[in-house]
Amino acid sequence: MPKCVLAFSGSLDTLVMIPWLKEHRDLDVVTLSVNLGGETDLEELGEQALLAGAVSARIEDVRDAFFRDFISPSLRALAHYESYLLAAALARPLIARELVRVALEEGASCVAHGSTLKGNDQVRFESAISTLAPKLNVIMPHREWNLRTRDQRVKAARLKRLRLPAGRQSDYKYDFNLWGQSIKCEAFADPSKAIPEDAYTMTQNAVSAPNEPEQVQIEFLEGVPVGLDGRRMAPVQMLEDLNRAAGRHGIGRADLIEDRLVGFKSHEVYEAPAATVFYIAKRALESLTLSRETLQVREGLAVAYGRCVYNGQWFSDLREALDGFYNRINQNVTGKVTLRLYKGNATVVARESEFSLYSAETALSESVEDSPAESKGFSKLFTLPLTAEARRKKGG
Amino acid sequence: MPKCVLAFSGSLDTLVMIPWLKEHRDLDVVTLSVNLGGETDLEELGEQALLAGAVSARIEDVRDAFFRDFISPSLRALAHYESYLLAAALARPLIARELVRVALEEGASCVAHGSTLKGNDQVRFESAISTLAPKLNVIMPHREWNLRTRDQRVKAARLKRLRLPAGRQSDYKYDFNLWGQSIKCEAFADPSKAIPEDAYTMTQNAVSAPNEPEQVQIEFLEGVPVGLDGRRMAPVQMLEDLNRAAGRHGIGRADLIEDRLVGFKSHEVYEAPAATVFYIAKRALESLTLSRETLQVREGLAVAYGRCVYNGQWFSDLREALDGFYNRINQNVTGKVTLRLYKGNATVVARESEFSLYSAETALSESVEDSPAESKGFSKLFTLPLTAEARRKKGG
Amino acid sequence: MPKCVLAFSGSLDTLVMIPWLKEHRDLDVVTLSVNLGGETDLEELGEQALLAGAVSARIEDVRDAFFRDFISPSLRALAHYESYLLAAALARPLIARELVRVALEEGASCVAHGSTLKGNDQVRFESAISTLAPKLNVIMPHREWNLRTRDQRVKAARLKRLRLPAGRQSDYKYDFNLWGQSIKCEAFADPSKAIPEDAYTMTQNAVSAPNEPEQVQIEFLEGVPVGLDGRRMAPVQMLEDLNRAAGRHGIGRADLIEDRLVGFKSHEVYEAPAATVFYIAKRALESLTLSRETLQVREGLAVAYGRCVYNGQWFSDLREALDGFYNRINQNVTGKVTLRLYKGNATVVARESEFSLYSAETALSESVEDSPAESKGFSKLFTLPLTAEARRKKGG
Amino acid sequence: MPKCVLAFSGSLDTLVMIPWLKEHRDLDVVTLSVNLGGETDLEELGEQALLAGAVSARIEDVRDAFFRDFISPSLRALAHYESYLLAAALARPLIARELVRVALEEGASCVAHGSTLKGNDQVRFESAISTLAPKLNVIMPHREWNLRTRDQRVKAARLKRLRLPAGRQSDYKYDFNLWGQSIKCEAFADPSKAIPEDAYTMTQNAVSAPNEPEQVQIEFLEGVPVGLDGRRMAPVQMLEDLNRAAGRHGIGRADLIEDRLVGFKSHEVYEAPAATVFYIAKRALESLTLSRETLQVREGLAVAYGRCVYNGQWFSDLREALDGFYNRINQNVTGKVTLRLYKGNATVVARESEFSLYSAETALSESVEDSPAESKGFSKLFTLPLTAEARRKKGG
Repeated sequence: MPKCVLAFSGSLDTLVMIPWLKEHRDLDVVTLSVNLGGETDLEELGEQALLAGAVSARIEDVRDAFFRDFISPSLRALAHYESYLLAAALARPLIARELVRVALEEGASCVAHGSTLKGNDQVRFESAISTLAPKLNVIMPHREWNLRTRDQRVKAARLKRLRLPAGRQSDYKYDFNLWGQSIKCEAFADPSKAIPEDAYTMTQNAVSAPNEPEQVQIEFLEGVPVGLDGRRMAPVQMLEDLNRAAGRHGIGRADLIEDRLVGFKSHEVYEAPAATVFYIAKRALESLTLSRETLQVREGLAVAYGRCVYNGQWFSDLREALDGFYNRINQNVTGKVTLRLYKGNATVVARESEFSLYSAETALSESVEDSPAESKGFSKLFTLPLTAEARRKKGG
Repeated sequence: MPKCVLAFSGSLDTLVMIPWLKEHRDLDVVTLSVNLGGETDLEELGEQALLAGAVSARIEDVRDAFFRDFISPSLRALAHYESYLLAAALARPLIARELVRVALEEGASCVAHGSTLKGNDQVRFESAISTLAPKLNVIMPHREWNLRTRDQRVKAARLKRLRLPAGRQSDYKYDFNLWGQSIKCEAFADPSKAIPEDAYTMTQNAVSAPNEPEQVQIEFLEGVPVGLDGRRMAPVQMLEDLNRAAGRHGIGRADLIEDRLVGFKSHEVYEAPAATVFYIAKRALESLTLSRETLQVREGLAVAYGRCVYNGQWFSDLREALDGFYNRINQNVTGKVTLRLYKGNATVVARESEFSLYSAETALSESVEDSPAESKGFSKLFTLPLTAEARRKKGG
Repeated sequence: MPKCVLAFSGSLDTLVMIPWLKEHRDLDVVTLSVNLGGETDLEELGEQALLAGAVSARIEDVRDAFFRDFISPSLRALAHYESYLLAAALARPLIARELVRVALEEGASCVAHGSTLKGNDQVRFESAISTLAPKLNVIMPHREWNLRTRDQRVKAARLKRLRLPAGRQSDYKYDFNLWGQSIKCEAFADPSKAIPEDAYTMTQNAVSAPNEPEQVQIEFLEGVPVGLDGRRMAPVQMLEDLNRAAGRHGIGRADLIEDRLVGFKSHEVYEAPAATVFYIAKRALESLTLSRETLQVREGLAVAYGRCVYNGQWFSDLREALDGFYNRINQNVTGKVTLRLYKGNATVVARESEFSLYSAETALSESVEDSPAESKGFSKLFTLPLTAEARRKKGG
Repeated sequence: MPKCVLAFSGSLDTLVMIPWLKEHRDLDVVTLSVNLGGETDLEELGEQALLAGAVSARIEDVRDAFFRDFISPSLRALAHYESYLLAAALARPLIARELVRVALEEGASCVAHGSTLKGNDQVRFESAISTLAPKLNVIMPHREWNLRTRDQRVKAARLKRLRLPAGRQSDYKYDFNLWGQSIKCEAFADPSKAIPEDAYTMTQNAVSAPNEPEQVQIEFLEGVPVGLDGRRMAPVQMLEDLNRAAGRHGIGRADLIEDRLVGFKSHEVYEAPAATVFYIAKRALESLTLSRETLQVREGLAVAYGRCVYNGQWFSDLREALDGFYNRINQNVTGKVTLRLYKGNATVVARESEFSLYSAETALSESVEDSPAESKGFSKLFTLPLTAEARRKKGG
């Protein structure tokens, strides 16, 4: 039988897909589970897959690659989509890349993913896969099977005597990686209702967060964080540490109405403690090291970059071209930013850089010999266009 | 002697300008002090001015006009300049408009303002005045006199036996209005040093803020806040109440590196408790009521609007045209937003609007008959451009 | 039988749809043919429809509404999509509006349109109709029938003994209205081949155009053209006259690679003589009457407006909000522009406006007393940010 | 005496500056004249300078560097400022760079330039020089001397018995380089008057241009033109040839109202035959090889790039960062474009590229099995946001 590599998260849905692909599509299923930093025991996940009928269960630790190839460029761009920092959206092209790589290694003729009909992920997966391996078939069971409702899928799992994912009796569905997680729940349907406190797992409620502020210093090298509190650290360690610290202080929750790629507004709940702190810190460092004009252009491109990521256009010439821009401006984004973490807030309290464009002398000195004439000249010429509009209004 | 209307804040500098204008420019000085919501006793200020030699001391309460004509349009646009919410920048065109109005009433031939050589205000005042009254002369003593240093000005004040402003022995200089205040101090020169806690006067330190969160509900009507916690309120009252509540919870501080109009980076410290909360609330309401494309265009125009305000181009055709855009989109920005104020944070916990574009049904339903084909078609056509890039890369 | 209103152009496809809707959908077909300025005999078209089985054939002259409600706003915005001036794209929402209006009048339960599977029009029609009348059913036979190929449709027409459209033996398919036409032909498939000369019907080849240039003066009132060569004219007359004059001189051809809404690049051929001249003229008048900052913002919004039109988002809040912006800036776009039409070119030779921001005095005078200091001050402060970058590079 | 390097064009003004710098500033003047492709005899210019008192007259042929370092990047970006293709603006940073280089070689303590008070060049020169050599003094005689009027300068020249520039009895002042020229004349003061025909020297009047069209094929390699009509050519040769060919056909004139950096509108007249053709050709090649999203971002950045060039910010981090973007997207802008030159027009008639994103198959095929569902799905999901707006309007 031809092989199919299935992106396997251990969720009920992807579990049920294993026998479905085998029986309804006559495929040998190789599952692929990637380690993006979560606490799930991937070995156990693999066993689950094999018990469900997979011919092989692959596990890949992609955390370093995730930071280097996806998180880093996106942070360097300060990419965002309507305030969302893109954690899940950044993981999709990585998973797609792994699916393709493993499919080639395994000689598989197709790959499968568990995206749902109303989500953005279907576009992200299919776009990435068709870009990296145009000839690979892509199967999205949610579009093809009859198991439309969750009840049907639970029933199918029971029928096959599949071991249902443990500890998932909660109403919440999480999609976690080191850069943040998204939380889904039917209870979020009404945006005029507050999010239940127990939905959050990465962050403390601000009220129960520590009563003492904590300071953290982040060191950036060319736009990439390389150290915390004076210690150079490996990226994964740094993310884990900062997720823990910022999460403890209740930082990084987002409760947003978001415009999905597929055309409707959705109520999205995210937690991204470390990412949030990095964004705030990097923004502060940029304000010190980039010129006004650069900041203005950068602001617009952060939206373009975010759109690339959100819309599944990671493997595009445009994204690479934007990196060309960001590579240059980040040459100056080196330095240290100190923040205070406290009760849901990360507040910049100090920043420094050997590439600072700020000059205390220029900003403060009051006695430059010729400045009166300079300031007058600047003001007059800068105001000239409005003077012309005024002259017009007065009819003369 | 011809008359000159001087914008008089009661600062040492504007105080010294009264005798200077009289003696060095042969002008009768009429002072104009506007009430923008501060605690200064303007009656006392007027007496000070007369004692210093003013022929008349005018006091104008412009708080309602400030909200209606300047704060409101700017908030409707979510205008900002590098994260700054523009409190002082919005007050300048209002003061300029008052200066012109009073100059006409008094038959004055010129107006004077206390802007300094390195600040943005000189451009804002001169631009506004030359637009509103191109023939009025504008005097900026800081460009013309010999009193270059503060010491010289203190000395000049003593020589004239001027009553120095009371209670200003502090190192901080404040520029306050209902929309926020900016704080200046030589101690801010080094951005790698934290701002001293005692600089802030509108906001509590988060640590000493109340340990209990407080909820506030803001009601917007066509993009303008009209009520708090279910009660319709007059704007000034609403701003005062919210400044107090948000300030008590430590909300609205900003410690920024900002690119001044006159070409250099400056370390700016602001407090804007009510403004900050309104921005957060309005943004949340927009995410519910404006389409993705509208939000994208709006985002760019908020920067254009902010630039108009920051750069002293309030009385411009461009700003009015932007209002044309914002008038239309704000027709839908009506509704209520509930926020939690706590320890420096204003967090949206709920939002509702009769003009909501969010549909729980669309977002959640999973059983639409034809959606598999729809989602497949959308994904395929949306991905088509990347497929073409991929085909190119493979040389096929 | 329930009624269906079919947008009927007289093409083979829409002709065949009449019996198809009747037989395969059990609908009484009312055809609607709109007069957008073409030479087609609409009365004859109506007869054709009745012969083909329509229960009624409606003909509507919508030329004035087309200019007033669609062409005018788009021209005022200088809207464009990748250089395309949007003639067909602007007609779609108008036709949709008419379909909806007639459907209501006729008590029809559905409307039908002849859009093809790979075109933009399907989105434009469906978007407009679902916005104007969400409950109206929309039928697009090209998605539903079996007559996939042109041959099949010709055969079906013969079978039904339908009178095939006369004089359409040519290889070219035209979509004409007063604002321009698009031309389709399989021969355009290869963009490395020149467009055959006989494809064009509105414009002369430049080589065979008159050897004498012709001057035309266009008068704009608030951004809308109101007269030619000193004579106020009704819009339709003006468009016809200018289409003839500019077409005679070979102006307004466009041979473009265009990114279709549905995700692929297409080779498009357009003729838009009058529209092209109006754009050139209006742009020239704007350069005289709008400030630099306004022009910059306007440039970006012209793209946003063009995207609305191209993407079928005419009846959107965003488009109306953009009109709010354009209404204000066009208050100053009043005046006269003289162009020379010659051999494919419309060249502005003169422009004037009572709202001109140009001042010969400002531009030319060389003797202003204080300008040396002014120019020095402006140059120094304007250059300050780069000086800071330079200082950084030198490490000092 | 300390040395000063003067940018010497041979104009009356720069000629008079030689003795002025010597007598009023006690400087030994080294003149620097650069060859940017004009017909001026630079050897003769050098003699003129020596006769006027220069201690040394340097002549530098910078044509290749001009193409490689300035024209090429700007063309790759399709940079423009309000339709102006930036010929003079691009030459300024090059001349500044040469001034600095020569000043270092000569051990000069300052440089001087002939910019006028109302022009953009003062900012461009001073910005570039202060960036490249912050410690070098810059003298702009037009700001410092008493020779305010042309008459005064003519008189000064006569007094010194300077040989006045020959053949410049015309009313027009030209600033020429291979990328185009600007023309100044007092007669252009009134924009409602046509430009006199004899102002133009690089281009034929369209009417007297050849009656036969001429075809030219341009070959681009990664966004840079490398050949004409199938022959690879050195850049300077290529520019000269194309300037001649396009000029003969009357192509590249521009008669614009332009917003000068120093705040007012100016009537500018340009000729840029080769540049105009290159822009048209490159734009056509981009439409074939860049995706829609890339084109949209590129369009905005072309304006940002143009602003950098126009505003004298060539040597900025922002410009270099933009190059980073453009380097990537131009990797695909390789191919050939054929244009017809005729009577003032350059019209693209064909284009081809091995990196084309256009697919005749995708664009034309009508029989794809599943497209009906695809097109329906795309249309429905794409239209969803407007449906939501419509639902809102209907109050349901």
